[in-house]
Amino acid sequence: MRFTSERRLDDGVLEREFTLGEIPGTLWTPGSSPAPLVLMSHNNGLPKADPRLVARARYTASRGYAVATIDAAGCGDRPRSAADERVRADLRRAMQAGEPVDEIFESFIGPLVENAVPEWQTTLDAVLELPETGDRVGYSGGWTALGIRLAVAEPRIAAAGFFAGGYVPRAQREEARRVTVPLLFLLQWDDEGNPRQRALDLFDAFGSKEKTLHANLGGHTGTPWFELEDGCRFLDRHLK
Amino acid sequence: MRFTSERRLDDGVLEREFTLGEIPGTLWTPGSSPAPLVLMSHNNGLPKADPRLVARARYTASRGYAVATIDAAGCGDRPRSAADERVRADLRRAMQAGEPVDEIFESFIGPLVENAVPEWQTTLDAVLELPETGDRVGYSGGWTALGIRLAVAEPRIAAAGFFAGGYVPRAQREEARRVTVPLLFLLQWDDEGNPRQRALDLFDAFGSKEKTLHANLGGHTGTPWFELEDGCRFLDRHLK
Repeated sequence: MRFTSERRLDDGVLEREFTLGEIPGTLWTPGSSPAPLVLMSHNNGLPKADPRLVARARYTASRGYAVATIDAAGCGDRPRSAADERVRADLRRAMQAGEPVDEIFESFIGPLVENAVPEWQTTLDAVLELPETGDRVGYSGGWTALGIRLAVAEPRIAAAGFFAGGYVPRAQREEARRVTVPLLFLLQWDDEGNPRQRALDLFDAFGSKEKTLHANLGGHTGTPWFELEDGCRFLDRHLK
Repeated sequence: MRFTSERRLDDGVLEREFTLGEIPGTLWTPGSSPAPLVLMSHNNGLPKADPRLVARARYTASRGYAVATIDAAGCGDRPRSAADERVRADLRRAMQAGEPVDEIFESFIGPLVENAVPEWQTTLDAVLELPETGDRVGYSGGWTALGIRLAVAEPRIAAAGFFAGGYVPRAQREEARRVTVPLLFLLQWDDEGNPRQRALDLFDAFGSKEKTLHANLGGHTGTPWFELEDGCRFLDRHLK
């Protein structure tokens, strides 16, 4: 793990870019250590530099967490295969034409999740070796499908916050019942591209004994600011 | 308004019983004044001395609110008409026999709400005259039907927290779209006696631009303790 840049933010949070082999990542750490670690993702391969992800990460770090994110294979600015480019073009075309996109999403997001998981696990191994991190780990992600896969595959993850705002492949919808950690599931009631009933069915499917749904009025990007606080309080209950 | 008993609790909260004409009530006030007022109800005529209501009220007062509750006409230990007694007996019989109870609830809860509203308004008038209360008013109630009616009829109510755990008469389901104050709607995902879809439809129907649903796994009485904190933070955002 090699740190390539470092910046101290106003509230004492240290923001560092790193590389881990081919994986580019960002790590935010609070003033005090060791801090519980939060793996924070953005939906379906959006870049780790996305301002909404960065804002969430900085806030969460200011609340006493180490926060790590990466661009996994095929995500962010990482190279994409010709097949990837083709399916993304198909997706854009289908969306503009108002055609059904489930099967395209399935062929696109399914492999993206499968390829991302080992890189997130490599990152988890490396970040947990730093003296800045304690041994409690949570997941907080716009990328619910990745979160489901990780929560099932990774016994180190002790709590998870998901955002019901992206396509979840069949494989992850099916293994949702195997997710058993405490869960906070965030839903935008009028999310344009994500059927509400499918999100409610997914919430219902999770195997966790403690699971909470927070639904707010509004579209995909309209999550109110207080959910950021609520998300940290959820993590506080399980990681501190 | 006549105070009939007074008790200082450990956390500085003053708990006083009162009567207001025929209406018996309880008022909790925090150490500091004036405090925003919360009208706190329990579902469908359950007594104001119910331990769960008292625990919620004491906690909310300890967070800096004046909290008032009453036994409205036909509620708690107040006298019931022969017709009331008959319909309650019908209800018990139907529930034991596993028969549909919607029409019985309709004939029972509808008038109970109508009769309760003027007494809650009388209480609001009286409590707001006390130096202990400020001019901001919220509603927090197990009794959602009463809350809907009050939120529509009472411009003084600035925010409302409802619990989706009781029968809401048709009249209140219809006027839900006229509720426009910020809203926190609490749902138990597996509430035995209350169909989940009906609760989700009611949440959808509210006219409020800011509305949040919190749903937790478990049955009618299984609401987790952290929802009490969340409820106070919701009130803090709108009444403080």
